[in-house]
Amino acid sequence: MSGVDRQQVLHRLSQVLPPEAIATDEATLDAYATDHGPTADWEIQRALAVVFPTSTDDVVALMCASAEEGFAVVPRGAGTSVSGGAHALRDAVTISLERMNQILSIDVEDQTARVQPGVINAELGQTVEQHRLMYAPDPASYRISTIGGNVATNAGGLRCAKYGVTRDSVLSLEVVLADGTVLRTGTGTFKNVSGYDLTGLFVGSEGTLGIVTEITVRLRPLPVAEETASVFVEDLETAAAGVLAISQAGVQPAILEMMDGATMAALDAAHGSNLAGLGGACLLVQTDGYGAAAEMDAIRDALAPLGAQVSPPGDERARSLVELRRHARGDDTVTDIRVGEDVAVPKSRLVEYVREVQRIGRDHDVKIKVIAHAGDGNLHPSFWIDVDQGTAGMARLDAALDESIQVALEMGGTITGEHGVGSYKVRWFNREHDEPAIWVQRELKNLFDPEHRLNPGRAIA
Amino acid sequence: MSGVDRQQVLHRLSQVLPPEAIATDEATLDAYATDHGPTADWEIQRALAVVFPTSTDDVVALMCASAEEGFAVVPRGAGTSVSGGAHALRDAVTISLERMNQILSIDVEDQTARVQPGVINAELGQTVEQHRLMYAPDPASYRISTIGGNVATNAGGLRCAKYGVTRDSVLSLEVVLADGTVLRTGTGTFKNVSGYDLTGLFVGSEGTLGIVTEITVRLRPLPVAEETASVFVEDLETAAAGVLAISQAGVQPAILEMMDGATMAALDAAHGSNLAGLGGACLLVQTDGYGAAAEMDAIRDALAPLGAQVSPPGDERARSLVELRRHARGDDTVTDIRVGEDVAVPKSRLVEYVREVQRIGRDHDVKIKVIAHAGDGNLHPSFWIDVDQGTAGMARLDAALDESIQVALEMGGTITGEHGVGSYKVRWFNREHDEPAIWVQRELKNLFDPEHRLNPGRAIA
Repeated sequence: MSGVDRQQVLHRLSQVLPPEAIATDEATLDAYATDHGPTADWEIQRALAVVFPTSTDDVVALMCASAEEGFAVVPRGAGTSVSGGAHALRDAVTISLERMNQILSIDVEDQTARVQPGVINAELGQTVEQHRLMYAPDPASYRISTIGGNVATNAGGLRCAKYGVTRDSVLSLEVVLADGTVLRTGTGTFKNVSGYDLTGLFVGSEGTLGIVTEITVRLRPLPVAEETASVFVEDLETAAAGVLAISQAGVQPAILEMMDGATMAALDAAHGSNLAGLGGACLLVQTDGYGAAAEMDAIRDALAPLGAQVSPPGDERARSLVELRRHARGDDTVTDIRVGEDVAVPKSRLVEYVREVQRIGRDHDVKIKVIAHAGDGNLHPSFWIDVDQGTAGMARLDAALDESIQVALEMGGTITGEHGVGSYKVRWFNREHDEPAIWVQRELKNLFDPEHRLNPGRAIA
Repeated sequence: MSGVDRQQVLHRLSQVLPPEAIATDEATLDAYATDHGPTADWEIQRALAVVFPTSTDDVVALMCASAEEGFAVVPRGAGTSVSGGAHALRDAVTISLERMNQILSIDVEDQTARVQPGVINAELGQTVEQHRLMYAPDPASYRISTIGGNVATNAGGLRCAKYGVTRDSVLSLEVVLADGTVLRTGTGTFKNVSGYDLTGLFVGSEGTLGIVTEITVRLRPLPVAEETASVFVEDLETAAAGVLAISQAGVQPAILEMMDGATMAALDAAHGSNLAGLGGACLLVQTDGYGAAAEMDAIRDALAPLGAQVSPPGDERARSLVELRRHARGDDTVTDIRVGEDVAVPKSRLVEYVREVQRIGRDHDVKIKVIAHAGDGNLHPSFWIDVDQGTAGMARLDAALDESIQVALEMGGTITGEHGVGSYKVRWFNREHDEPAIWVQRELKNLFDPEHRLNPGRAIA
C-alpha cells in the first residue's frame, strides 16, 4: 500500500463523494484513528481521509476508486472494536458506515428487519419491541455499537447461550466486493441451503472480504417475562458445579455469567457495595419467557445442595448486577493500563482456566480479574498494571497475555470467542490454526481481495 | 472425468483399502446407485465401485488415489438425500461413510459430542438422552440418516424454528480435502470468531468441497416437558393468522407445522381417520421445556378468537399426528410418480404460496398436497401424477414444478430450505442466484476442488 499518492487519492475521493462526506481535518483524523482496542501511542496511525458514504452506490464508487488508485480501505461502524479491527492505517481511507443508519423495513409477520450497517443495535431492539419482537444479539456495547460492526465481528453477548450469536440472527447480506461488485447473499427466509453459505462467510470476516451495506436479520418473539437472580457461592469450583447443575436440571438460561472475587472487589470499590463479603464467586442468572419463573425455581432447587445463596424473586440488586455486568470492564481509570481478553474454552475447563490465569497473574506480577459467559465457556479476563510501571511493566503484561492465550489453546480453546482477531490478536492467529487452516484462510482472502485493499492485516495472519 | 480406466482405478483402490472395504458386485452397485431423490430409470448410473472406509486415514488414501488417477468420488451417508446429492456417477467411486459410525466421545459438562460421520442421528439422540441432553436437529429421516449426511445438506427438521438447523449445532469439523490434506475447522467451544467461518462453509456443501470425517456437535439440555396440540381451522388463511397470533403472544414453539386439506385427506385414506371433516387446514404445535404448559395455554388464548378447535391437554391424537407428520410424505405407492418440493418463502407469504401451488396443480392437471414448517416458512408441497400418464404426464409434472419454483423465487424465497440442491435442483440454481453470487460459488468450488473430483455437478450449477 505504500506508494499511494495522498493528493491523488483525495482528488479521486472528491470526484465520487460530495464534500460533506469527506473529512481530512486533523480533529476528525484523530477521532477516527483508533477504536476501543489496545494500542500504544507510537502505533497510532491517521488515515488519508475519513469518508462517510450514505448509500450502497457511494460504497461502490469508493471501492472502484480504491481499485483504480490502489489505496486500501478500513471499514468502520461505531469504532467499538476491542481488538483494533477498525484502527486507521496511514496509507488507507477509513470508510465510516455510521451515516448509513436507516432501518429500511420491519416485517412483523416475517419476523425480519432489513437495516443499513450503521443502525445502532439498541435502536433496532427498541424499535421492534413495540411489535413484541426482539433482536437477540446483545454485545456489551449494544447501546453504542452498530449492527454492521456486530456482523463484522460476529458479535456475541450475554444472551447468546440461549439465542445464538450474531450469525444466528443474520439471514441475508448485501456486500460490496473489492472491485465494486455488489453481491447479495441468502434470502429473507429463515432457511436456505441453496449453494455455499456465503452469508456465514462474510459474518465475522471483519471487513476483509467485502463491505456489508445491508443486512436482513431474523427477529424473535419478545419474551413475556424475565427472572433474574444472583448466586453467591464459596468459590469458583462451586460456581462451576452450579453451572453443570443448572444444565442437568434441563434449563437453558438466557444469561449465565460468572464473576470472580477480584471482579466483585472492583465493583465494591466502584459502587460502595459489599459483594466480596457474600462469597468467593458469583453467578448471575436470567431466565425468560413463559417458563421464566418455573426455570428459576428449578435452578434454586438445583443449587440448594451447593450451599449457594440465591437472591429472592424480584430482587433489585440481582437486576442491577446484570446491568453492572454489562459494564464490568468499563471501570478503567487513567491510572492503569488494561487489556481485556476474550478466549473461549470447552465449558468443563472454565474454572481450571480461571485458576491458571490467576497463577499467570501472580507469576508475572500483573493484576487479574475474570468475568465469564459461563453458559458458553467464553471468558473475559482483565489484565492490568499501574501506568507508572513503564516498559518493564508492559513486558510483564505482554508475557502474561501470551501465556494466557497459550493455556487456552492447550485446553482446546480459541484466541477469540466474540471480539474478533482485529489487529491486536493477529500475533496469536497461527498458534490456533494449523497449516491447512491457515492456507485455506489465506486463499479465501486472496480470492475475494487479491490486492489486499480491504482492511489489510486484520482478521487473519 | 471420462477417460478413467476402470481396471486401473480398481487396482489402485485395492492398494489402499482391504478387500472387504471394496464392493464391485452388481447387487451392491445397484443398491448404491440412487438415493431417495427423484430419478428416471434412464438416468440411473452405477459407480465404478463402492468403498467403505473405516478411518480418516482410509479417506485420505482414497482422495490421494483420486488425485493420482483422476477419478471423481461421490460421498454418501445413509443415502437418504431427496435431492439426488448421493446418486452414483458412472465414472466415479462412491465413498460410503456408513462404517465410520462411532460416537467418539460425549462430554456432558461441555455439552458436546464428537462423532464419526456415519453415526445415525437418532442413535446420537438416544445416547445423549441418558445424560439429560438432546441433539436438536431432527430431519424427518432422523431414524435412518447420518450426522455426516445431515452436515452435508445442513439438514433442518421439525424443531429447527426453535433450536436451529444442523449448522447451529456443529462446532467443529475434520475434513479431507481434494488432495488428501486433513483440515480441522473450529474448536470444541460454543463460540469462536478466529478467522473465517470454515465450519459454516463446509456445512451444507454437499460433499463438493471436501469429505467430512469427524464432527463435534453442540448438545442442549433435554426439555423436561412437552405439550402437543392439534389445531383445526376453517382454512389456510385462518391457519396463517394463527401462526402470527402465536408469535405475537410471545411463544416460540418447538414444532409448528401446517397441513392443507389434501394432506389431511391423504392421511385419512391411509389411516381411516376423519381429519378432513374437522376443518380445511390444520396446525400441529408442540411446546417444550419448563414453560411448555404455560406456552400452550397462551397459544389456546391466542387462537380462541379465530374459532380454532384446539385439542385438549394430553391429547393422544395430537401426539400421533406429529408422528404421522414425520412420515407424511412416506405414503407413496407404486401407482403414482411423486416429487416432494422444499422451497422456503418469507413467513408472511406462506398461504399465498400454497394458494399459488394449488392453482399451478389445477393449471397443469397435477395433484398437489402441501405441508409446511410454518414456524420458519419452509414448505414441502408434493406434486404427483398417476404412473400410467407417460411422457405427457411427466412433462406436465415438470412444468408444474418449474412454475412452483419460479413463484417461490418471485416471493423472495429459495429453491431449497433444507434438502439441498443435490443433482435434482441444479437446473434451478441460476434462477435464485445472480451473476456475482454464481461467480463466487464457482470460485469457491475451484479453490477447494480445482479438478472437480468431489461430487461433481452437485450443490451448485
